[in-house]
Amino acid sequence: MIIILRSEASDADIQAVEQKIRNMGLEPHVSKGVQRIVVGAIGDETKVDKEALEALPCVENVVRVMKPYKIVSRDSHHADTVIDVGGVPIGGNKLQVIAGPCSVETAEQMQQSADAVAAAGCRLMRGGAFKPRTSPYAFQGVGVEGLEMFQKAAKAHNLPIVTELMDVRMLDTFLDHNVDVIQIGTRNMQNFDLLKEVGKVHTPVILKRGMSATISEWLMAAEYIAANGNHNIIFCERGVRTFETAYRNMLDVTAISVLKRETHLPVIIDPSHAGGKAWMVPSLARAAVAAGADGLLIEVHPRPSEAWCDADQALSPDQINKLMGELKGIAQVIGRDL
Amino acid sequence: MIIILRSEASDADIQAVEQKIRNMGLEPHVSKGVQRIVVGAIGDETKVDKEALEALPCVENVVRVMKPYKIVSRDSHHADTVIDVGGVPIGGNKLQVIAGPCSVETAEQMQQSADAVAAAGCRLMRGGAFKPRTSPYAFQGVGVEGLEMFQKAAKAHNLPIVTELMDVRMLDTFLDHNVDVIQIGTRNMQNFDLLKEVGKVHTPVILKRGMSATISEWLMAAEYIAANGNHNIIFCERGVRTFETAYRNMLDVTAISVLKRETHLPVIIDPSHAGGKAWMVPSLARAAVAAGADGLLIEVHPRPSEAWCDADQALSPDQINKLMGELKGIAQVIGRDL
Amino acid sequence: MIIILRSEASDADIQAVEQKIRNMGLEPHVSKGVQRIVVGAIGDETKVDKEALEALPCVENVVRVMKPYKIVSRDSHHADTVIDVGGVPIGGNKLQVIAGPCSVETAEQMQQSADAVAAAGCRLMRGGAFKPRTSPYAFQGVGVEGLEMFQKAAKAHNLPIVTELMDVRMLDTFLDHNVDVIQIGTRNMQNFDLLKEVGKVHTPVILKRGMSATISEWLMAAEYIAANGNHNIIFCERGVRTFETAYRNMLDVTAISVLKRETHLPVIIDPSHAGGKAWMVPSLARAAVAAGADGLLIEVHPRPSEAWCDADQALSPDQINKLMGELKGIAQVIGRDL
Amino acid sequence: MIIILRSEASDADIQAVEQKIRNMGLEPHVSKGVQRIVVGAIGDETKVDKEALEALPCVENVVRVMKPYKIVSRDSHHADTVIDVGGVPIGGNKLQVIAGPCSVETAEQMQQSADAVAAAGCRLMRGGAFKPRTSPYAFQGVGVEGLEMFQKAAKAHNLPIVTELMDVRMLDTFLDHNVDVIQIGTRNMQNFDLLKEVGKVHTPVILKRGMSATISEWLMAAEYIAANGNHNIIFCERGVRTFETAYRNMLDVTAISVLKRETHLPVIIDPSHAGGKAWMVPSLARAAVAAGADGLLIEVHPRPSEAWCDADQALSPDQINKLMGELKGIAQVIGRDL
Repeated sequence: MIIILRSEASDADIQAVEQKIRNMGLEPHVSKGVQRIVVGAIGDETKVDKEALEALPCVENVVRVMKPYKIVSRDSHHADTVIDVGGVPIGGNKLQVIAGPCSVETAEQMQQSADAVAAAGCRLMRGGAFKPRTSPYAFQGVGVEGLEMFQKAAKAHNLPIVTELMDVRMLDTFLDHNVDVIQIGTRNMQNFDLLKEVGKVHTPVILKRGMSATISEWLMAAEYIAANGNHNIIFCERGVRTFETAYRNMLDVTAISVLKRETHLPVIIDPSHAGGKAWMVPSLARAAVAAGADGLLIEVHPRPSEAWCDADQALSPDQINKLMGELKGIAQVIGRDL
Repeated sequence: MIIILRSEASDADIQAVEQKIRNMGLEPHVSKGVQRIVVGAIGDETKVDKEALEALPCVENVVRVMKPYKIVSRDSHHADTVIDVGGVPIGGNKLQVIAGPCSVETAEQMQQSADAVAAAGCRLMRGGAFKPRTSPYAFQGVGVEGLEMFQKAAKAHNLPIVTELMDVRMLDTFLDHNVDVIQIGTRNMQNFDLLKEVGKVHTPVILKRGMSATISEWLMAAEYIAANGNHNIIFCERGVRTFETAYRNMLDVTAISVLKRETHLPVIIDPSHAGGKAWMVPSLARAAVAAGADGLLIEVHPRPSEAWCDADQALSPDQINKLMGELKGIAQVIGRDL
Repeated sequence: MIIILRSEASDADIQAVEQKIRNMGLEPHVSKGVQRIVVGAIGDETKVDKEALEALPCVENVVRVMKPYKIVSRDSHHADTVIDVGGVPIGGNKLQVIAGPCSVETAEQMQQSADAVAAAGCRLMRGGAFKPRTSPYAFQGVGVEGLEMFQKAAKAHNLPIVTELMDVRMLDTFLDHNVDVIQIGTRNMQNFDLLKEVGKVHTPVILKRGMSATISEWLMAAEYIAANGNHNIIFCERGVRTFETAYRNMLDVTAISVLKRETHLPVIIDPSHAGGKAWMVPSLARAAVAAGADGLLIEVHPRPSEAWCDADQALSPDQINKLMGELKGIAQVIGRDL
Repeated sequence: MIIILRSEASDADIQAVEQKIRNMGLEPHVSKGVQRIVVGAIGDETKVDKEALEALPCVENVVRVMKPYKIVSRDSHHADTVIDVGGVPIGGNKLQVIAGPCSVETAEQMQQSADAVAAAGCRLMRGGAFKPRTSPYAFQGVGVEGLEMFQKAAKAHNLPIVTELMDVRMLDTFLDHNVDVIQIGTRNMQNFDLLKEVGKVHTPVILKRGMSATISEWLMAAEYIAANGNHNIIFCERGVRTFETAYRNMLDVTAISVLKRETHLPVIIDPSHAGGKAWMVPSLARAAVAAGADGLLIEVHPRPSEAWCDADQALSPDQINKLMGELKGIAQVIGRDL
């Protein structure tokens, strides 16, 4: 930790900083420049309360030297982590496309979706039984029965299932229904009690990025899960909020290479929620694979315009089929496999 | 609802739009211009699935005519709502300042805080027993015992208490401890299951704005609470996320007049979490009152630099005292009372 | 144009709106719903002053039906425009990579840069003689002599040159030095007098997106150039400003498909200024090509760590060479050529 | 300057950093921690090229210790600077409200505007003869004749005039017409050639903040003017771009206290362009004064709904009159004068 003091800092101010650092169990090291005084705090930075230092008189800036995340950091584990989801590996050289409808609607719709997903060559399936909707008056998902319909349709094609958990009280039901991957949605990225609970089980977790979460906050949210014992975490970028209104969210394609550098865990992309329109999805999906993502999460519906939610962003069976061909080609160019 | 079609729309495209509108129980009204075709959908707009219309071929844009929120809308209730919190009114001509420490630490700290808050003339007290922290390794709050210490200290001065609920499973404990106002924090603004549960009780709720929530999404989050039966909702703006790094969050002072126009419910401001530095708080607090806020939520600590969290943003007893004097003066200028 | 009135609008309010619409030369069409009154304004929307309508009592919202841009719009010209730059086509099936150093430094550096650019197979060269720097104390570019060094080095390899024009008074000098493509930088995207002047010449213009310009504002900035007569405009996305601090700017990869839909003009990407770090460039460059960009603008320096500006973002000759191979492969997958 | 190296840095990497620092004329000071190596660069930081250091292998982060701005910094001049504009002081204890129409339209409109401005007690007048408009097809200002009409109307009431300069070639005309304060608009905040030219004259300059400029970039833009010799600079915050769409821009009220701490120069606020609606202006104007601004820039028009531009944001003569009374009251509460 480095503490930069204002030029008018008195000897008493400097001593207060030194004392505070010693109280935290670190060793201060003062260096007086012409216009600024800089104090280094040497030792275990995780013990330091940055705000307590910033609150002292004449402290202008406090800069961390270490990253605040540990278990999820590539510093702590150099090789890429590969997560096994019912025999399907996520995070290695092989890319995975997780496809399926926004929400579970009917047994028939799920069966047709599973057929389309499997036919396109995807090896995992997505679908929501509980939906976070902006309006309390909108369709909120079919609920627990949805999990059953989903499992039945997916099992027929041997597809592990991915579905969103919104309420901590529903976790046991998810486990009872053998959900293969628990998705934590963008609105719950910092629902810390939910993170702690999914940290106590072993089911892999897809952690979506918060609407305006920094990459650092996102890594810290994953650290909450990891610190509770579950290291099977997959990051999913799904677009962030900006000033642009021409589409729903701005896909942060740069986050892919930054995350691959900062963490050993897999990184996937959701191009459907990013753009918010089906016609944008192929372009974004190709970009994500070219940029180095480990996989994709894509909305597919047997009849998109009849979908019960997000009707304008689902691909049709034909569209996902064509897209998979392009993605395979791009994966090969960069030495990977789909 | 108004649907704007692309210029190349065929008669079949137009008919598909008309049919979809009829299926939703509204009446279509087509108007052909030189370069665009515009279709109005007349009837109850809450029945309309905007995305299903946007998914149709040749639809360029779908514009809502009505506001998506109802119970919280000023359209549904013209006069200002005044919420009674243990005899203290929030939302009328009289402004309220809710002050207290970031977190409950010890019985002594809470007693000293309550003394300072009451001495400054504030009529409600804040303090957190459960803290949402970015890092899993940071102090997470003292927990349930904190609620007890808090109640004891506040009762001595007859101050109703405000404290944050993060976990839906803790709601009964909050009710058992007679929490006067439940605060829903910024990270949980769209934790819809939590919103539904606090919607089922009668305790007033302070709903903080999400880090990058639009005003419309915020109103819809309140609508979740209201739709479940609890209309005692207080909006609290606490700064939003932008590109600026000179301070923590950007206080959205414009949101005050927009909200006062859109909703009949009270609007308060948290200047402490906005700026993130104690020296910014008086300026922001004065601005909020001058702009028309119904109250403030301010961090006060008996010895700020020793606070267990957010040490750099709490005011000292002297500082809150001085600030209250200025706020009283500004309130009078605009015909209000503090 | 569609005007939505508040529910309390009186007959006089409606008549004032109708009168204003007639004064603008359009025909009003009133439609009264249960809770809102909607007025359509039929005719030439470019004659409408949106703000004058919004200023009328009881007007809640005014929605454009038409796009505000014309010449640059794909509505006015369906086929892709291909711009000829000294025999090199930009905007067709063939992608172009424009590479070179951030700034012109010395004759030797420019010659080595040109060698590297040509050897990698790039067909145009970039380099700045005038540099927009945040600090008045930083290196501001070598000036006019830089244009000469640049031309000499590029001519040896038959590479058309791209360089930034910051000051309208320097335009004649640019023409005298046969600059092949004039770049308008991000800070000047809405320097309207500069746009008007480059609109009066025939030299192709690369128009970089403003730091936080919406796609619509960017198209309107291009319309300024086009309206003055110069239709040889190339859009260049270079990352926008957001809350994220892990890299310099957020590359808006979604803008590619949106722009290709809205305009017939070519769209290229600058991955160097987006991420701001050389190690991010290959990932972003591949993403841009996969997403459908018509070309790239990349910083290349013979010895990056010695560059006089943006030293941390230039690729070395080896790095651009390797990257070109990957880009060629991706281009082929999507049926294009590099 | 503090340079933080990655943990895997070799001795050669450290030496390369030390050598680079010495080449820049500073002295390196290496401090090896358990997990990171930190190098201090002691000496004149303005000589340091941050990017050249960041480009070296194993450098993770480079942190400035000093502020990059000098002349405008409060470090270089502790007392508040008061700028004299034709006898009217800006920046001292007395607040100034600069009012007038968005654009100069006719001699009559300017005369009525000047009457209203003077009657309300404002001591300076604003008005645009050249207008930066998003669309090339919108009204662009009446031009040079506008300056004449403006001067004539303002002189009758002894009001110094403030008007926007967009084109560097028009500077002499502004001087010939005795413009009292040159306004640099938000789109030109980083038009460095324009900044350099207004830096060479002595006319006071109002420097508006760029649409998404950080406070640091804004101070550096002022430093461009100051470094060229003109120290009569007034900062004007006018709202910044965010994700919120309920109003035009988000007024950054926190910027007031940050700027007053960082610079000795005056800081004023433009509430009209911030919110973009007349009904928001009083609330924002009061907030700005309460927060500590040195003045305001407000749009006033004799008949707002007939204004040729920004019709929806101008106050009427009655409205500015009422607002001035409230502002006077708030100024008194905080020990200032209007």
